[in-house]
Amino acid sequence: MEELKKTEKTRLRRGPSQAVFDREMLYQIFDEAQLAHIGFHHGLQNYVIPMLVWRWKNRLFIHGSNGSRMIKALCEEQLSCITATLLDGMILAKSAFHHSSNYRSAMVLGQFYTLDEPAEIDKCLAVFMNNIAPGRWDEVRRPNAKELAATTILAMDIDEASVKVRTGGPNDDEADLDLPVWSGEMQLRQRVTAMVADERSQGNAPDYSEAWGEAWSLDET
Amino acid sequence: MEELKKTEKTRLRRGPSQAVFDREMLYQIFDEAQLAHIGFHHGLQNYVIPMLVWRWKNRLFIHGSNGSRMIKALCEEQLSCITATLLDGMILAKSAFHHSSNYRSAMVLGQFYTLDEPAEIDKCLAVFMNNIAPGRWDEVRRPNAKELAATTILAMDIDEASVKVRTGGPNDDEADLDLPVWSGEMQLRQRVTAMVADERSQGNAPDYSEAWGEAWSLDET
Repeated sequence: MEELKKTEKTRLRRGPSQAVFDREMLYQIFDEAQLAHIGFHHGLQNYVIPMLVWRWKNRLFIHGSNGSRMIKALCEEQLSCITATLLDGMILAKSAFHHSSNYRSAMVLGQFYTLDEPAEIDKCLAVFMNNIAPGRWDEVRRPNAKELAATTILAMDIDEASVKVRTGGPNDDEADLDLPVWSGEMQLRQRVTAMVADERSQGNAPDYSEAWGEAWSLDET
Repeated sequence: MEELKKTEKTRLRRGPSQAVFDREMLYQIFDEAQLAHIGFHHGLQNYVIPMLVWRWKNRLFIHGSNGSRMIKALCEEQLSCITATLLDGMILAKSAFHHSSNYRSAMVLGQFYTLDEPAEIDKCLAVFMNNIAPGRWDEVRRPNAKELAATTILAMDIDEASVKVRTGGPNDDEADLDLPVWSGEMQLRQRVTAMVADERSQGNAPDYSEAWGEAWSLDET
């Protein structure tokens, strides 16, 4: 297990027992979440926007159209933040006060930069697609030159980062333990619930659900 | 349907067809997501943190311990942002380029302020708990004076906000429509997958799943 370095920005001051400095855990969170929220500011106003985010080796990636205001804003931002969170369950205690949640959350701080090398862009998009739908890159029409030229990929190195995790059950007060109340974890998961075919679809629905289940590790070959 | 006002900050410049200015839709997104990401900055560094967020009438709420660095930082921040996103599905097109996602995302801009009136705090916490687990406020030990005094609730008015929604199937190029590829939507949902009882739990597991299904509206009585 490789440890993420602790910096003044990423040191957790509350609930330090929930802080994890494990790079593998950070990778799993981003690989499983697939969606992340990105923070930047414009003047004094903060913005948080959802983006599909994928990881390849030790970098995070997002993509967008060349002309997108978002892509431009993120390129200009010096110190962006990408956070992905999996809400794993609600902790139902015997007292209102000790209710809590189980979750895994990873935050990466850094500056975005654009990928410029066509071969790297192509490979990076393959990783993106296969993370969403394993094997699909080999099933679909690949991007042509015009489509590639219209796409910007931004990368951020996973350098300054923090991970926070809560697992386990409720921590009730001793005096409440005999109350006649159900207590435990209401487990939550994001799941593939249906494959809805388009009218021009052909063939049987493929099964990509392995990408959306329990902590799934990306094949980087 | 009441429309959210359009401001310079919330006007969407890309994909305006996906912009929705419906306050009810914004309410549903926060009620269903329960988790949101909050953006603030400290110096030039942006931060995005996950928080359980609930809505009551036309306000959003978060809570934390009085001493929390986060709560202090959010109180000092002039222009915070709260964003909640539901990833409803991945859109699998016949070409890599037209892959997309279905989602509902709501962003609220504003300044946090603390709730100070004890009766309002108590009612607000009841709404929070019943949003996570309908009816549970009447089943558990309510907060005592000490617990209430240790809790800070921050509120933000839903005033300046935007909502972005994508629904429907893939938008493939005409030339790709006959490719022998499965296309459509891989539908994703967050679901209650188990109720894991604590060893000191009593009684049968309650069913709170209605709070975590399809767009669920909060009962405000």
